[in-house]
Amino acid sequence: VKRLALVGCGHIGGSLALALRREFPGLVIVGVDPAAAAAAAAKARGVIDSIAEAPSRDVDAVVVAVPVRSIPPVLESLAGFEGVVTDVGSTKAGAVRAGDAALARFVGGHPMAGTERAGVEAADPALFVGKRVILTPTERTDRAALVFVRDLWARVGARVVEMDAAAHDRAVAAVSHLPHLVAYALAGAVGDAGDFAGLAGGGFTDTTRIAATPPSMWVDVFLENAPEILALVRGFDARLGALRAAIERGDGERIARLIDEARAARAAVLG
Amino acid sequence: VKRLALVGCGHIGGSLALALRREFPGLVIVGVDPAAAAAAAAKARGVIDSIAEAPSRDVDAVVVAVPVRSIPPVLESLAGFEGVVTDVGSTKAGAVRAGDAALARFVGGHPMAGTERAGVEAADPALFVGKRVILTPTERTDRAALVFVRDLWARVGARVVEMDAAAHDRAVAAVSHLPHLVAYALAGAVGDAGDFAGLAGGGFTDTTRIAATPPSMWVDVFLENAPEILALVRGFDARLGALRAAIERGDGERIARLIDEARAARAAVLG
Repeated sequence: VKRLALVGCGHIGGSLALALRREFPGLVIVGVDPAAAAAAAAKARGVIDSIAEAPSRDVDAVVVAVPVRSIPPVLESLAGFEGVVTDVGSTKAGAVRAGDAALARFVGGHPMAGTERAGVEAADPALFVGKRVILTPTERTDRAALVFVRDLWARVGARVVEMDAAAHDRAVAAVSHLPHLVAYALAGAVGDAGDFAGLAGGGFTDTTRIAATPPSMWVDVFLENAPEILALVRGFDARLGALRAAIERGDGERIARLIDEARAARAAVLG
Repeated sequence: VKRLALVGCGHIGGSLALALRREFPGLVIVGVDPAAAAAAAAKARGVIDSIAEAPSRDVDAVVVAVPVRSIPPVLESLAGFEGVVTDVGSTKAGAVRAGDAALARFVGGHPMAGTERAGVEAADPALFVGKRVILTPTERTDRAALVFVRDLWARVGARVVEMDAAAHDRAVAAVSHLPHLVAYALAGAVGDAGDFAGLAGGGFTDTTRIAATPPSMWVDVFLENAPEILALVRGFDARLGALRAAIERGDGERIARLIDEARAARAAVLG
């Protein structure tokens, strides 16, 4: 890859740009961001070479790294572009639908490398090393484009897996979106309950770490993946309700069983 | 301190014993544990010097490190003992009530140093370095005993603070017990939702880390501190319900506000 357009110069997009620069010397990156300050910060940090209003058509590939609900309109605005287009959105159904409809060589992608940091200031070229990147090709996906995107991610150290978009959205609702929602509710509830400044141990700190994430991207994710998330919230309520009921009636055996099930479930997810 | 009895030879008791040995050369520690295997493991690891059926009366102090609902009966069994008695239970109202009634020199304590590990095998003499230990003296508490216990914890590197037992139990319900309950419900719900082996990123891993804790101590904590915990679960439900309602009606502004409140609350607790 020689010329790349990056649409969305934030933490993930900026990290990918820095990582690709290391791997492809001479790579020219044109940055696009609706927020002029973000593009300027990316240029100042050397993440991008120049700033444009829209991706020019002379690039080999476009990486779309804007909040998820802005991805479909960006993909539609690229209609007719012949190069490879990929995105890094953490929900995939909407992006894949729009990309397949508008573009000849679209590949949906999601690097599972989010942190509680945000902004190009926190961009890190090593962010993807050892992390999983899920690509969501469809029957329509151009095979050469898929190979191209797979190679890009492999070059920056990621482990690439493929999955269909609906299965992806169900899985991330469970392992990422629900944990975020629960962490926000937990931090808020503790804040409502009183002033416990300085009293938290590792439990509160770990459990709510992802609640430090700024709202910009999460509002989009919660709205975009609402049906999957709401289904999981019902399952969560059932589990919490079972624990609460067992506590209310003093049923230690039932509490122990629910804890054992939780530990087994966690161990299974972590493999 | 020259002779000490340790009742409960698990992770916390064992860690304290190892730490005190470093600070008080020649200290003799007599171990008591209802589980013979735990006492034997503690002796094999050099955590205790000998095993007894019950604390002998010739020790200077007794440290009670059994699950919280077993603390009051242990304190009652020590009635008449003239030395200092302290405990490490993570709820304090019941222990303080029993200790004040049965003993002349009882001081309630809670080292906030729990990890997801358990058992004397994981005992670590550095466990308390820089950690907070909350002591819960009452009007009845012997001042010399309080100074003695405060000094013990300071010697093993802990930062000692004092608080009344009811305020302690409210605070730990918020910063420790509710996060544990939520982590168990979350891990269980994700397990119920499907097979996501190997797909979890940092979000699920961090948020559910404390769900790896074995049930033995947590059944007791949830039952012992039930009223405070149940009140917090209601507050948590209100927060989660507000997020869910905002997602259901597609209200991005409300979601953003709830996220901002959560972030501010977290920052306030962490100081």
